[in-house]
Amino acid sequence: MHTERVRLPALLDKLMSADQAAALIEDGMTVGMSGFTRAGEAKAVPQALARRARQTPLKISLMTGASLGNDLDKQLTEAGVLARRMPFQVDGTLRRAINAGEVMFIDQHLSETVEQLRNHQLKRPDIAVIEAVAITEQGHLVPTTSVGNSASFAIFAERVIVEINLAHAANLEGLHDVYIPSYRPTRTPIPLTRVDDRIGVPAIPIDPAKIVAIVVSQQPDSPSTVLPPDAETQAIADHLIDFFKGEVAAGRMGNDLGPLQAGIGSIANAVMCGLLASPFENLTMYSEVLQDSTFDLLDAGKLRFASGSSITLSPRRNADVFGHLERYKDRLVLRPQEISNHPEVVRRLGIIGINTALEFDLYGNVNSTHVGGTRMMNGIGGSGDFARNAHLAIFVTKSIAKDGAISSVVPMVSHVDHTEHDVDILVTEQGLADLRGLAPRERARAIIDHCVHPSYRGALDDYFQRACARGGHTPHLLREALQWHIDLEETGSMIGGLLNQARSA
Amino acid sequence: MHTERVRLPALLDKLMSADQAAALIEDGMTVGMSGFTRAGEAKAVPQALARRARQTPLKISLMTGASLGNDLDKQLTEAGVLARRMPFQVDGTLRRAINAGEVMFIDQHLSETVEQLRNHQLKRPDIAVIEAVAITEQGHLVPTTSVGNSASFAIFAERVIVEINLAHAANLEGLHDVYIPSYRPTRTPIPLTRVDDRIGVPAIPIDPAKIVAIVVSQQPDSPSTVLPPDAETQAIADHLIDFFKGEVAAGRMGNDLGPLQAGIGSIANAVMCGLLASPFENLTMYSEVLQDSTFDLLDAGKLRFASGSSITLSPRRNADVFGHLERYKDRLVLRPQEISNHPEVVRRLGIIGINTALEFDLYGNVNSTHVGGTRMMNGIGGSGDFARNAHLAIFVTKSIAKDGAISSVVPMVSHVDHTEHDVDILVTEQGLADLRGLAPRERARAIIDHCVHPSYRGALDDYFQRACARGGHTPHLLREALQWHIDLEETGSMIGGLLNQARSA
Repeated sequence: MHTERVRLPALLDKLMSADQAAALIEDGMTVGMSGFTRAGEAKAVPQALARRARQTPLKISLMTGASLGNDLDKQLTEAGVLARRMPFQVDGTLRRAINAGEVMFIDQHLSETVEQLRNHQLKRPDIAVIEAVAITEQGHLVPTTSVGNSASFAIFAERVIVEINLAHAANLEGLHDVYIPSYRPTRTPIPLTRVDDRIGVPAIPIDPAKIVAIVVSQQPDSPSTVLPPDAETQAIADHLIDFFKGEVAAGRMGNDLGPLQAGIGSIANAVMCGLLASPFENLTMYSEVLQDSTFDLLDAGKLRFASGSSITLSPRRNADVFGHLERYKDRLVLRPQEISNHPEVVRRLGIIGINTALEFDLYGNVNSTHVGGTRMMNGIGGSGDFARNAHLAIFVTKSIAKDGAISSVVPMVSHVDHTEHDVDILVTEQGLADLRGLAPRERARAIIDHCVHPSYRGALDDYFQRACARGGHTPHLLREALQWHIDLEETGSMIGGLLNQARSA
Repeated sequence: MHTERVRLPALLDKLMSADQAAALIEDGMTVGMSGFTRAGEAKAVPQALARRARQTPLKISLMTGASLGNDLDKQLTEAGVLARRMPFQVDGTLRRAINAGEVMFIDQHLSETVEQLRNHQLKRPDIAVIEAVAITEQGHLVPTTSVGNSASFAIFAERVIVEINLAHAANLEGLHDVYIPSYRPTRTPIPLTRVDDRIGVPAIPIDPAKIVAIVVSQQPDSPSTVLPPDAETQAIADHLIDFFKGEVAAGRMGNDLGPLQAGIGSIANAVMCGLLASPFENLTMYSEVLQDSTFDLLDAGKLRFASGSSITLSPRRNADVFGHLERYKDRLVLRPQEISNHPEVVRRLGIIGINTALEFDLYGNVNSTHVGGTRMMNGIGGSGDFARNAHLAIFVTKSIAKDGAISSVVPMVSHVDHTEHDVDILVTEQGLADLRGLAPRERARAIIDHCVHPSYRGALDDYFQRACARGGHTPHLLREALQWHIDLEETGSMIGGLLNQARSA
């Protein structure tokens, strides 16, 4: 039974039910689970854990690669299982618990979690729960649709629970490249110099004696929730592609642009879709998550190779891609997120990083995480890994939200995830601001002229002019700097606030 | 004449006066000059340029390694020479011009300037002015007390002016290790795996045909202005050394700690001095600037090796170190700042980065640059290069300034240079907050309990409690978040503001 999926016969006696495996997780434990951008998460064991916790309360500290699918964070939150959670999440129920201060959420750069585990700066997982396609003859784990932090979790944990998910095709094997940096003080360079280099091994090398349970499941990943391009996201894509054309014309990029990274979400996906009709050829991706657009570009012959840490597809592409994986396999690799997002590699390869901002300010500081400066949305994810070391750090957002009640371009962001030092290009549907080599007052001019929505342009320009009259390298009026956010909080609208201000003036 | 210093005879006819050389700099040019932390800057030519501009106005865009000594930024500012300036400065006169919006200042991570030049994202220098100890038989330039950005400036510039400074001893030759990363898309790993690796060449390799002028000068570097430790900086050092002892005891560090980086300034210098009496042995430095404390530690046998980009000493140590350089030479290397601060190397080596904060907030966001959120002090320097990729990102500051009128620990920083994601340890004379693995509310607790001055502790705790009652992952009261800064601006004191608030409540 399952001898093709569990190829080390000695392990077959570890087969058990999800409930039995979940019983190995004890109150107070630190647990590392697979899963990155709703792909490749362990499913049966956390579901069983949530069921058990509804009967017998227990709390754990849960670390994953990034977000989980299948409502797992919701179920675990509702069952009261999560005391601590890191490094990323996208679930509405968990988000409410985080913002209520009920779950301690540690919002980390995605490349850093395992580095901090390696150095014992974070407590290592007591137990790892890893979804796998198969266990090899050596007892090594073949990941499924994501690598994420799975390799290091399995290596660092004392005990490992493996979920063999039959919903994933066995031919995912061979897609992964597991490389683990060596320890200091004798750490050597990461030997990756090309997007398509394979530098590791195809399975997670662990001592099979650590495998304490094997659970067979058959539950697919959740589909991607990315929306198709709309007029605004299409306009953002168009501005960015025009900018790339200018860079190529100026000789700053070749016609293959350089390795592309695109954050998860509808805007970044629209930008990648925009490349389909572009004149660029032999494109490559060195990114975290490979989305529908990656496979559209591969099919169109535009994309030569894609490196990621996970594959997350919509229902439109899912069966097609995984049903014909051999068609893509020599042009794809999935790596640990430490390597897909590594500062060393990002700088060396010269990544073009395209990530979504929640809001940005006059001077190019970007808020990726906190609504109104206080309420966590999802987390910084990999955006900082890429922006800080990229050849081009690009942030995209629609210029307004909530039918214009919110301007995404504000006098001062209410929370900073990416500082002015690290942001090169800002794009909204209104246009593109190229901030490279500009001083703050020049950046403000570019942002006001190109990015802000017309309904907020006058107010932002007025703020800037009055701030400049007060002086300073980065002019601000501290009494008004956060007023737009205060108005939003108190009146439900930044425009409302502006109108009130005008009335009272 | 000077044939030992200019060893390629064909270049001897390029010898000319500083005034003649300065005449080669034209209005509107971009000029790259040597100089890093007041060490190794070209002196005679910029002085001649300032003299000339007082007669015949001209404007240039000036880039250096970091700060200049000998009042050069002052003279150039007063002569109206500076249209644009990057990436760092410490001069009071220039600072005023920057804050008045008269000089466009681009405040950059010190590792990034030449990377952006290499990619043509910044305009390359038309002319470079480089201080050298000597020109070799091949026409290559031997830097003096700093490498900084000199190598890439000389390589990228069409024309090079060399200042041979006889005030520097000829035996500086051999101290430098000039490595230039290769171009993308075939860039290879930086082959540096140990602090004492030499991976480059001892002189800056340029085509001697580019050398258009050689000026002989004899003017020493400015001395360091670092102050000796006082009670507060000593207390900061003590807290940090206790923390290091704990890390060693916990097995997270060896007794050699790992490569140390210390920002310029009195606090970081005090911390390094504190290591003299510590139990740690075989220390190494992988830093930007080597200060008095480096040589005190070398003399004491505590420090095994020091890598930097410059040497800046007080009058106390200057003659002694440079008069007996052979004593130190096999334990020292000076590198381009791109390499001393490179994200790839910082991560690989596991740097312990110790830098000074201007202020930090409840959640661990750090402001290194902007007084009151608007007025530039010096610039971010290398602090972000190190903090973002370090094994430990440590920021130090005294808890109060201006006799208590200012708290360095505030509800929300008025400008963010280092985000909560990148800050591990905060230290004031009050104590040390270890933020690793903590969620924002936990970070706030640690910072209130350990770092804030007692005279502000109650007010900060009150803010935090009331913010928590409003909710959010990172609780804030937007209406009050910047009030301490507003009070300082309007009343000259944060305490004054607090008292007024108490009175009106």
